[in-house]
Amino acid sequence: MIVVMQRGASEKQVADVVKRIETLGLKSHLSQGEEHTIIGVLGQTFPELQDILEGLPAVENVVLVSRPYKLASREFHPLDTIIDIDGVKIGGREVVVMAGPCAVESEQQLLDTARAVKAAGATILRGGAFKPSTSPYSFRGLGEEGLKLLTDVKKQTGMLIITEIMSPRDVDIVARCADILQIGARNMQNFSLLEEVSKTGKPVLLKRGLSATIQEWLLAAEYILAQGNDKLMLCERGIRTFETYTRNTMDLSAIPIIEKVSHLPIIADPSHGTGKWYLVPAMSAAAIAAGADGLLIEVHPTPDTALKDGAQSLSFENFRLLMDQIKPIAQVKGRGIGTCQTGN
Amino acid sequence: MIVVMQRGASEKQVADVVKRIETLGLKSHLSQGEEHTIIGVLGQTFPELQDILEGLPAVENVVLVSRPYKLASREFHPLDTIIDIDGVKIGGREVVVMAGPCAVESEQQLLDTARAVKAAGATILRGGAFKPSTSPYSFRGLGEEGLKLLTDVKKQTGMLIITEIMSPRDVDIVARCADILQIGARNMQNFSLLEEVSKTGKPVLLKRGLSATIQEWLLAAEYILAQGNDKLMLCERGIRTFETYTRNTMDLSAIPIIEKVSHLPIIADPSHGTGKWYLVPAMSAAAIAAGADGLLIEVHPTPDTALKDGAQSLSFENFRLLMDQIKPIAQVKGRGIGTCQTGN
Amino acid sequence: MIVVMQRGASEKQVADVVKRIETLGLKSHLSQGEEHTIIGVLGQTFPELQDILEGLPAVENVVLVSRPYKLASREFHPLDTIIDIDGVKIGGREVVVMAGPCAVESEQQLLDTARAVKAAGATILRGGAFKPSTSPYSFRGLGEEGLKLLTDVKKQTGMLIITEIMSPRDVDIVARCADILQIGARNMQNFSLLEEVSKTGKPVLLKRGLSATIQEWLLAAEYILAQGNDKLMLCERGIRTFETYTRNTMDLSAIPIIEKVSHLPIIADPSHGTGKWYLVPAMSAAAIAAGADGLLIEVHPTPDTALKDGAQSLSFENFRLLMDQIKPIAQVKGRGIGTCQTGN
Amino acid sequence: MIVVMQRGASEKQVADVVKRIETLGLKSHLSQGEEHTIIGVLGQTFPELQDILEGLPAVENVVLVSRPYKLASREFHPLDTIIDIDGVKIGGREVVVMAGPCAVESEQQLLDTARAVKAAGATILRGGAFKPSTSPYSFRGLGEEGLKLLTDVKKQTGMLIITEIMSPRDVDIVARCADILQIGARNMQNFSLLEEVSKTGKPVLLKRGLSATIQEWLLAAEYILAQGNDKLMLCERGIRTFETYTRNTMDLSAIPIIEKVSHLPIIADPSHGTGKWYLVPAMSAAAIAAGADGLLIEVHPTPDTALKDGAQSLSFENFRLLMDQIKPIAQVKGRGIGTCQTGN
Repeated sequence: MIVVMQRGASEKQVADVVKRIETLGLKSHLSQGEEHTIIGVLGQTFPELQDILEGLPAVENVVLVSRPYKLASREFHPLDTIIDIDGVKIGGREVVVMAGPCAVESEQQLLDTARAVKAAGATILRGGAFKPSTSPYSFRGLGEEGLKLLTDVKKQTGMLIITEIMSPRDVDIVARCADILQIGARNMQNFSLLEEVSKTGKPVLLKRGLSATIQEWLLAAEYILAQGNDKLMLCERGIRTFETYTRNTMDLSAIPIIEKVSHLPIIADPSHGTGKWYLVPAMSAAAIAAGADGLLIEVHPTPDTALKDGAQSLSFENFRLLMDQIKPIAQVKGRGIGTCQTGN
Repeated sequence: MIVVMQRGASEKQVADVVKRIETLGLKSHLSQGEEHTIIGVLGQTFPELQDILEGLPAVENVVLVSRPYKLASREFHPLDTIIDIDGVKIGGREVVVMAGPCAVESEQQLLDTARAVKAAGATILRGGAFKPSTSPYSFRGLGEEGLKLLTDVKKQTGMLIITEIMSPRDVDIVARCADILQIGARNMQNFSLLEEVSKTGKPVLLKRGLSATIQEWLLAAEYILAQGNDKLMLCERGIRTFETYTRNTMDLSAIPIIEKVSHLPIIADPSHGTGKWYLVPAMSAAAIAAGADGLLIEVHPTPDTALKDGAQSLSFENFRLLMDQIKPIAQVKGRGIGTCQTGN
Repeated sequence: MIVVMQRGASEKQVADVVKRIETLGLKSHLSQGEEHTIIGVLGQTFPELQDILEGLPAVENVVLVSRPYKLASREFHPLDTIIDIDGVKIGGREVVVMAGPCAVESEQQLLDTARAVKAAGATILRGGAFKPSTSPYSFRGLGEEGLKLLTDVKKQTGMLIITEIMSPRDVDIVARCADILQIGARNMQNFSLLEEVSKTGKPVLLKRGLSATIQEWLLAAEYILAQGNDKLMLCERGIRTFETYTRNTMDLSAIPIIEKVSHLPIIADPSHGTGKWYLVPAMSAAAIAAGADGLLIEVHPTPDTALKDGAQSLSFENFRLLMDQIKPIAQVKGRGIGTCQTGN
Repeated sequence: MIVVMQRGASEKQVADVVKRIETLGLKSHLSQGEEHTIIGVLGQTFPELQDILEGLPAVENVVLVSRPYKLASREFHPLDTIIDIDGVKIGGREVVVMAGPCAVESEQQLLDTARAVKAAGATILRGGAFKPSTSPYSFRGLGEEGLKLLTDVKKQTGMLIITEIMSPRDVDIVARCADILQIGARNMQNFSLLEEVSKTGKPVLLKRGLSATIQEWLLAAEYILAQGNDKLMLCERGIRTFETYTRNTMDLSAIPIIEKVSHLPIIADPSHGTGKWYLVPAMSAAAIAAGADGLLIEVHPTPDTALKDGAQSLSFENFRLLMDQIKPIAQVKGRGIGTCQTGN
């Protein structure tokens, strides 16, 4: 971090900034420009420090030079993180497909979907038991009953399970059932939830917030990593823009950026990213072409009767077509899809 | 809610939509336009229903006609809600000023500030014990020790206390100390927190989310009201825009809008709304001119050494000047400020 | 502007950056931090320079220290600019109200409105002859016929005229008729239009672009000032946000910010800023409380039959009520409204 | 368009809305819902009509059912538009690559680049003579001299030329030189420019505005088509979001959406879309995987010394690598790249 003092800042004003930096346990280094005195801040800085220093008298500008996250950075951990869950490797050569219904509705619905997506090449089953909803009057998931169904279907199909967790209260019961704990976009900055989920030691998928920058997303990741859990993957699911045709705007550039600045695997969710099932195949292909390590896709036996997000869910047939379209793209990128499935 | 079918939709497709609506416990009403069949949905709808119906075959468009929130609406509750806390009335004739430090740092800091802001006309003391921070390496508040200091200073000054709550885990201890429980912008859609906080029965201040629409904000309010707690006030604290000069962009039009569509009191927070202390007086005056029922303002004995948000905190002297500037504006609006203080 | 080199940047890489800066006719100043070499850039910089330098090898970060606009800045011109048009002073003690129909429709409509708004205290008549429209099928104004009507009504009422100009082609005919040339939000970065309009030497009102930052707005102002025309005022008319209740979100904090960083008068347009006539009075009051030098308000004899923007136009009666509400606010701020009208 | 009246709207209020619709030359159709009277509007509507009708008494809501653009829609013109320029077909089976420097700087720079990009498979040479710049102090292009160089290099290489046009004033001289006239993002709603450019009859590339929705973009396209010029292609170049890592956020979902709702060819510009040359290859691959008909890419002999946008320009070598990476993606999609080059 670098503090640029205003022209004509007095020696006392410079000294006050230096003192403030040192009070916070950091070091400083003065250098005298022709127009401005510049103070380098040495040590682990944080975004709020910028606000603090910009508020001091005679400070012109404060610049974040190094990234404010550390554990999530490629500099700290140069090699790709590969998360191995019972032999399924996320972040490796293989593109991992996670598919299933938005919400768990019944055993039949879940089991049928699991079998269909597995047959088409998916390795991990997604399904929500606790569902966020902007209205208290909407369907909010089957809750514990949904977790039970996920556990049952896992036994019957051998698929790994990813499901969302919304409250610190539910951490224990969800962690018993799930192989991957999903933090939803609205909870990206629910810092107490991040820490509780991290402590389970389970693999975590952290979705990008609705209007979060990549830096804020990686700082949220830092909360999880700082608790000692390094089995973390990120998920781009679209950000809020002025466009109304799509539910969100997928920021596919986040994929090569995360690959450059971080070691964490990056998953794409074109179902939430677009909100329209007929855009999902094109955006899945694009995500893989951009370098995604995996896809998270909503599939439902009968999208027209889904209790949630039917408009963005693929039918079994359309999911198979999608898989057929993306496999050759993955091959061009030197990657495989669905070739390393686990048992049953 | 109104469903517009595509031109040439078949009878079966229309019947399927009707069936879907009825499965959800709602009623429907068909009317035949010249180009489109239109289906009215009768009953308590919810935003997700729009997605569900838009996903059905041959549906052109689904329109939310009535507001998806009910308990928060002016139609449901035509008279202004006035929250009476030990004689301090929020939402009434008086403009209520809540002021104090961003974060509780020490007893001396808190007590000095409480006395200064009370003398200038503030009725409620703000101070954070649990502080959200985008980085795990930032200062995150004194926690329970901070709550203890708030309780002590309340005893010494007789001021009411407002403080933020960030986790369902902390509901009990915060509710014991605070007179108003604050839900921060990042938690506006932390639905499990909303419900837990509501159940305490304590007055709640709900901040608008960083990129939330007014409708989403009122739906979050609905979560609190639906648990039976009607002592709810809203707080506009700025939304995220492309502007970088300010920390956020205060949407002051939210004030007359809330007054029109809802019965809930509306508070303005120009400290977070701008991020710069020297903009706070002008925006406080503007908020009152626009009809705000109260202000939430950060004040610190020595803003330059504040552990958090010093750049947006007013000194005691500047807070006094601000109060002098806004009182005549309130008078023009037929309202008073600081004339009904409680004891000590 | 300050260039921060990466740790470990070679001497040659530093020298290359210095050379690049000097090629552009600017000077540089090296200073050696503990972790980073820092290069100060001296001379008149511009935003694109940041992109150029950030693209060079081993450059970590480039920081804009001083503002990239000069003529528009308060530093360059410490005193307030006051524009005097036939005795009406904009930017002085008086709050100037410009009111009238969105689009000129007929002589009767324009004359009736002019008389009504003048009687209520407006000094300048607004009315569009050339109207921007997002669709080629919408009403796009009466064109030259509209200009003729404006000229006629000016003669009959003695009011000054402000009207929008959309194409370099129309500069001559509009400048002959209008006292103030308005550049609309969609044309804020239509750089060739800015220059042509500036060359007329006529007073100009420059609206903020739909998603423009304050810095981009002031850089657009710089285009006009750099052509030698200093009779320039700015107009905040709302920016695009995610909120859908209002047409735009008025950024009232722009008012005290412009007052701080620039010498140019700042006008508020609550009609476009909200898009709803019933929000205009509250936002007008708030704008004056925040320090606006003037208001631009849409008024129509019969808003329900207006050819354009009826939803945001006030009736004569509602405009009179608004003027009654804002006068005492202006008084509190030590300003007058409508007390220095010109003749007839 | 459908107008939903408020509950309890009077017969007169309904009749007034109908009258207003008919005054505008449109027809209406009443249908009586159980709660609301609904008025269908028949005929060619336009977005502003929504504002007009929403402003009328007792109107609850106005809904755009059909798209407000016509000539740009797939319904109007079901087959793909293919633009044939001297044998180069845009919108056909071939993915067309347009490459070259951001700004024309010298004959040597332009000629070298033209030869390099042609050898690698580009068919069309891009190069700016008139450059938009947010600051009047930035480099703004060589102007007419730049056009002359483009004409010379076209003769020497046989490549087609695309260049930007910024002012109605320059239409004649640019149209004489260029094969494709480019409308930049900042001019997407410069309606007088759109019409002048259309009238040349030359092929036009229309970039999406910085914060434009797809509907606004297609309405701008409608301005060009309505003048009788149907040689129009669209270009996605990123939209403004809160993300700061990239210059803009590429909305790749716009590619399959345009393909679905319109017949116009869709080009992707990953150089402006990201602002960083090292993200261009991944986003080019993703754009083609999503279905883009072409790419617009900045290439410079020595990006580090480019007068404009060096940070997003590829070197010759990196452009060749990019072409190698995208060709197999195009093949997977059943398309070719650079196989149908014109002479010399």
